[in-house]
Amino acid sequence: MRKLRMGMIGGGPGAFIGAVHRIAASMDGLTELVAGAFSSDPAKSAQTGHDLNLSESRVYGSYKEMIEKEKSLPENERIDFISIVTPNHLHFEPAKLALENGFHVVLDKPMTFNLKEAEELKKIADASGKYFCLTHTYTGYPMVKEAKQQIAAGKLGKIRKIFVSYPQGWLSDFLEGSDQKQAAWRTDPSRSGIAGAMGDIGTHAFNLAEYITGLQATKLCADINIVVEGRKLDDDGAVLLKFNNGASGVLMASQIMAGEENDLHIKVYGENGGLEWRHTEANSLIIRHLDKPAEIWRAGNGYLSSFAQHNTRTPSGHPEGYLEAFANLYRNFILCVQAQLSNGQPKPEWLDFPKAEEGVRGMLFIEKVIESGKSEEKWLNI
Amino acid sequence: MRKLRMGMIGGGPGAFIGAVHRIAASMDGLTELVAGAFSSDPAKSAQTGHDLNLSESRVYGSYKEMIEKEKSLPENERIDFISIVTPNHLHFEPAKLALENGFHVVLDKPMTFNLKEAEELKKIADASGKYFCLTHTYTGYPMVKEAKQQIAAGKLGKIRKIFVSYPQGWLSDFLEGSDQKQAAWRTDPSRSGIAGAMGDIGTHAFNLAEYITGLQATKLCADINIVVEGRKLDDDGAVLLKFNNGASGVLMASQIMAGEENDLHIKVYGENGGLEWRHTEANSLIIRHLDKPAEIWRAGNGYLSSFAQHNTRTPSGHPEGYLEAFANLYRNFILCVQAQLSNGQPKPEWLDFPKAEEGVRGMLFIEKVIESGKSEEKWLNI
Amino acid sequence: MRKLRMGMIGGGPGAFIGAVHRIAASMDGLTELVAGAFSSDPAKSAQTGHDLNLSESRVYGSYKEMIEKEKSLPENERIDFISIVTPNHLHFEPAKLALENGFHVVLDKPMTFNLKEAEELKKIADASGKYFCLTHTYTGYPMVKEAKQQIAAGKLGKIRKIFVSYPQGWLSDFLEGSDQKQAAWRTDPSRSGIAGAMGDIGTHAFNLAEYITGLQATKLCADINIVVEGRKLDDDGAVLLKFNNGASGVLMASQIMAGEENDLHIKVYGENGGLEWRHTEANSLIIRHLDKPAEIWRAGNGYLSSFAQHNTRTPSGHPEGYLEAFANLYRNFILCVQAQLSNGQPKPEWLDFPKAEEGVRGMLFIEKVIESGKSEEKWLNI
Amino acid sequence: MRKLRMGMIGGGPGAFIGAVHRIAASMDGLTELVAGAFSSDPAKSAQTGHDLNLSESRVYGSYKEMIEKEKSLPENERIDFISIVTPNHLHFEPAKLALENGFHVVLDKPMTFNLKEAEELKKIADASGKYFCLTHTYTGYPMVKEAKQQIAAGKLGKIRKIFVSYPQGWLSDFLEGSDQKQAAWRTDPSRSGIAGAMGDIGTHAFNLAEYITGLQATKLCADINIVVEGRKLDDDGAVLLKFNNGASGVLMASQIMAGEENDLHIKVYGENGGLEWRHTEANSLIIRHLDKPAEIWRAGNGYLSSFAQHNTRTPSGHPEGYLEAFANLYRNFILCVQAQLSNGQPKPEWLDFPKAEEGVRGMLFIEKVIESGKSEEKWLNI
Repeated sequence: MRKLRMGMIGGGPGAFIGAVHRIAASMDGLTELVAGAFSSDPAKSAQTGHDLNLSESRVYGSYKEMIEKEKSLPENERIDFISIVTPNHLHFEPAKLALENGFHVVLDKPMTFNLKEAEELKKIADASGKYFCLTHTYTGYPMVKEAKQQIAAGKLGKIRKIFVSYPQGWLSDFLEGSDQKQAAWRTDPSRSGIAGAMGDIGTHAFNLAEYITGLQATKLCADINIVVEGRKLDDDGAVLLKFNNGASGVLMASQIMAGEENDLHIKVYGENGGLEWRHTEANSLIIRHLDKPAEIWRAGNGYLSSFAQHNTRTPSGHPEGYLEAFANLYRNFILCVQAQLSNGQPKPEWLDFPKAEEGVRGMLFIEKVIESGKSEEKWLNI
Repeated sequence: MRKLRMGMIGGGPGAFIGAVHRIAASMDGLTELVAGAFSSDPAKSAQTGHDLNLSESRVYGSYKEMIEKEKSLPENERIDFISIVTPNHLHFEPAKLALENGFHVVLDKPMTFNLKEAEELKKIADASGKYFCLTHTYTGYPMVKEAKQQIAAGKLGKIRKIFVSYPQGWLSDFLEGSDQKQAAWRTDPSRSGIAGAMGDIGTHAFNLAEYITGLQATKLCADINIVVEGRKLDDDGAVLLKFNNGASGVLMASQIMAGEENDLHIKVYGENGGLEWRHTEANSLIIRHLDKPAEIWRAGNGYLSSFAQHNTRTPSGHPEGYLEAFANLYRNFILCVQAQLSNGQPKPEWLDFPKAEEGVRGMLFIEKVIESGKSEEKWLNI
Repeated sequence: MRKLRMGMIGGGPGAFIGAVHRIAASMDGLTELVAGAFSSDPAKSAQTGHDLNLSESRVYGSYKEMIEKEKSLPENERIDFISIVTPNHLHFEPAKLALENGFHVVLDKPMTFNLKEAEELKKIADASGKYFCLTHTYTGYPMVKEAKQQIAAGKLGKIRKIFVSYPQGWLSDFLEGSDQKQAAWRTDPSRSGIAGAMGDIGTHAFNLAEYITGLQATKLCADINIVVEGRKLDDDGAVLLKFNNGASGVLMASQIMAGEENDLHIKVYGENGGLEWRHTEANSLIIRHLDKPAEIWRAGNGYLSSFAQHNTRTPSGHPEGYLEAFANLYRNFILCVQAQLSNGQPKPEWLDFPKAEEGVRGMLFIEKVIESGKSEEKWLNI
Repeated sequence: MRKLRMGMIGGGPGAFIGAVHRIAASMDGLTELVAGAFSSDPAKSAQTGHDLNLSESRVYGSYKEMIEKEKSLPENERIDFISIVTPNHLHFEPAKLALENGFHVVLDKPMTFNLKEAEELKKIADASGKYFCLTHTYTGYPMVKEAKQQIAAGKLGKIRKIFVSYPQGWLSDFLEGSDQKQAAWRTDPSRSGIAGAMGDIGTHAFNLAEYITGLQATKLCADINIVVEGRKLDDDGAVLLKFNNGASGVLMASQIMAGEENDLHIKVYGENGGLEWRHTEANSLIIRHLDKPAEIWRAGNGYLSSFAQHNTRTPSGHPEGYLEAFANLYRNFILCVQAQLSNGQPKPEWLDFPKAEEGVRGMLFIEKVIESGKSEEKWLNI
């Protein structure tokens, strides 16, 4: 198959996630970045395009211009898909426009600024016939996929208990008071939405719990805190959860756990055993049993499921990390798009990337968790 | 100082914790077990006394008999203190009788069958002029003591967030259905009280959080579950907490986390950093900082606080474990009793063992956490 | 700067390291693969070129053809550098030809088939004015670079002891008896040279020890074994080492440590402390001290040296792995080539990649370690 | 059975290991210290006896006096066994005298001052009909026993490779230059013998390797170093080993690995898998396999061998440490003595403690390793 042509919206100077998307997208040689509207400031967009060795004619001053002009290019020139890496308040419009104009879309999480937008965007995506990928990165790790497969195969029996925690410490101080671009938009309700930590990382934790277990949370009870004085959005929270099979759970997400570095951590327990995965030891999955020794399943081994094996690039013992997990989302998305282009059937392993459905779940979580944080009622239905 | 003479109530055939108390009490050569009422069945008591090489005349058929007869012995023969290691419903009466008859008391946790008993027992203990030790074992670990000292010294700044978890898996099945003595009484409301897991291990987690931080929980919101069908008491729960300085917390305690083995785990975060201790790596304490590398503080080193150093027996690198932590409670209790006997002053390090105050807090926790588990209201005051 | 144009020799069907080179080279968007002689079988070469979306005209049937034809292309079309990823016996000739015809070279390790070739190739590289990079991947890890910087800055004091171990288990069986391409050439003296495990992974361990400490080994005493029956080259060995500052060391490399997966591990001790790095926890570096707690230095943090910081792509907490370490070699090499093309000065951080000098050291190690393995003499000078 | 009566030689003021022996011996309530010759200075001996609440009449001014006087006591009063915890040069004479006068003996390692003494002492022990226990503590850990059992049962297949390392850092400075009792005798040839680190901790590592694998080393090649200026005995060394089944090995022992704390570590590899145990994680044993996930076997579980289960006191999840491992040696020794006293048969699990045979092996190792360190010959036969 030919390399797909990629366009990007956002990801200009000072952005963190834009660079990650570019590395992830191109890692497997399946796509090439050929166009971009990298900033709402045309000069900054042009500068980024230049730095990335893009043709000047394919660097645009706005996403609307990009979509319009790319659409008018010959089919064998124009971009196949668009990656949108802007802050949350600038997700819905460009994604809608891209899908409606025939481009497949990769969108950074959380899906939109609010639930209403997410539900609408899901409808648009469903109707478009195009692929839509939401970058819940952690579902791209091979041992996360293995965890999902083991539970789906019934290895743990009925699931009883879920614990998931996403600890960060980088917002322990009032960082938005200084000129820190990442902190600024994430703590600003006009760009981030109603949630801070819960939207930025709580949604990752929530998605991971539902992804691995295959369950859906049905009720929650949240303690949502603004710990750092002067901050406008939550920087810490804990949530009690009930799932649709009767299991219960605890979710924690915090950006004021001083000294912590993204050590996303999940433990799931069933009737017969439990499993544990954590980001700092991403290439391992611990499986515990009632009556025999725990096991350490390791990425890259032949004993893993096809889903885990499909999502590694190197033999066992060569650690793969965050960029590879991110690249797995892109690779699966691209393989599906390529299959569509060639009228082929995507494999189940390729289809295993987060889509609009997961995005709506995430926005529902944000809406409810913030509502619960303010409520005197114990349990809210999701 | 002479060795103290110890009597024991409970700890007969099939008991687990009785043997632990005996090892812990005698580890440092500061005491000798000389009397016991090991079972309500006199034959079983006699058998245990025989197995332990006790003089027949000091093995009793009931605790009442023991207290009465020992009291009548000459001062230089009779026991100095009594360890009570019976199930919860048999804590209050023997402890009361022992204190009122002039014996110092070591009592297994939780303190009593219910809060009312605990409050009354605290009054009796306070009035008795005798030492009362409640065996919250985990506070005996040197690195737990170091954690407390570091927070007390302000190393982490104001505490913001506490996470504590006590995971077990041994009650994943309906073990009380078979003839398993440990499971039987712990899941029986008539012997254990209103709580199962929350009383058995939740109180340890709660005590650890309050001990290390020096804070008191003021509100809680609990999700309390009976997971295994047919069980009469909770075997799993999660609790949101608020503390008296404004910090928030999460406490988990479960006996159905299949494959887990007592890996009691606590993380505390303040303005300047965080700390982490876990039972499986009991000789280490991790201290995290905002802007510099995390540190691994290790038991037995000269850089530790006097409280940590006082509670180790071997140089750094020689792992000490559960029995040594338990022995630390006994040693500190005994050193205080010896000081009293010799009209000396106990050192602050010796006084650092759990007392009736901690016992009442634990019973209050049990009462409230079970109440919250049944309530539709979100936050209950403690 | 423009993207560099890359050609590849080797890396056809069934190759492992070729794909790794392609991912690593392109990760940062600094280069593009435009030409290749992927196999000595022209059909296989063409197939690989096709799979990689290369222009047919730039896919060659032999490396000689590639070098000749590329040289004749206009300067703004022809490749800038060549990556050579063939088995060891096919390193020298293509590398020589590439350098002599004006191409910068990236060469997989070990440098050549024997020491003589290595020494000659070093002379050619030195005389060529071109950059030559030998892919000792592990020196690309940021925390390995941090280790080197800390020792260079004297943090550990004078180095006294070095331990380095490279354990693998994949050759525990007679894998070369089945049709396994990786095992076949690595255990074949006509393709691998005089050493098996010592050449394949022992050289990595040796290079890591010299790289991190800045020392040179001066004497060695080796125990070299062929453990698996029928094998023609060593699959296991241990080496006592003496270094030029008086330090001593131990190096282990084995491919029959059943169940092990490349957990390259190094510990270095000096007068004031020690450090430890291991491949399975590649984003951490442990620093130990005589009188204070050990520290865990973590990749991506602002407290690290410029060398460590330069070699990460994501903030702390996002694990980077083998492919990123490999990409660091390429990025530094490319940055140097770009600097040369633009008549600029390379930064010290860019120049920090393995060169011909390290390659000669590696071949010297191979020669001596195999000689020592057969010798009755205890110490051989290196 | 009645408690055994114990006497002690050595263990006076400032001693480390004497206190450890006393805790270990009494932990299980199977013995009571009733007599001692704690120092060659009668006043110091008396002081220690007083501190330990011993009857004055049983505290002696010399070991000769103790053995003579105790022997003359009535059988139901006199000590059953003697623990000897003096520096190495004071092992042989008291052990010989004790055995020849009918006392069972526990002796600290290494066995004697030199090999000749050890061989003679073994003969005396063999002829005495008394039990002789040498305190190679690490063989008392339950997961070390599990390791031995798994290898004996053939789980790993034929053993191919052994790595054992005993790293310490406490002698990184010239500690014997200050008034440090532990450093002083260990670095003094007149009290320690011909070896420093190799005798003190190298023998532990050597014993562990032979104990776990059931193999015997037949050849060695050693690099023995005095790293700290002014020191009289080795403080660091590494040894290549050959075993009687053809396996090879590496042993490291050092007291100048700055920051290390007794993390004795062993890895053994066979045809089918490997195992790993380390002192800092003493309650775990890692078993690796060729084609399936590694397992973590944990102390206290029902799935362990009878040997491992016999040597724990608490259920799984309660860490046991150095004192319990030491106590396991004593318990097994005492159970054997009790069996002899009651004309019973000791169980295989009880007999599993280090004896004179292991002591001779250790002294042989010391003799040969120091000889090899000075030799130009590569391999010396053991």
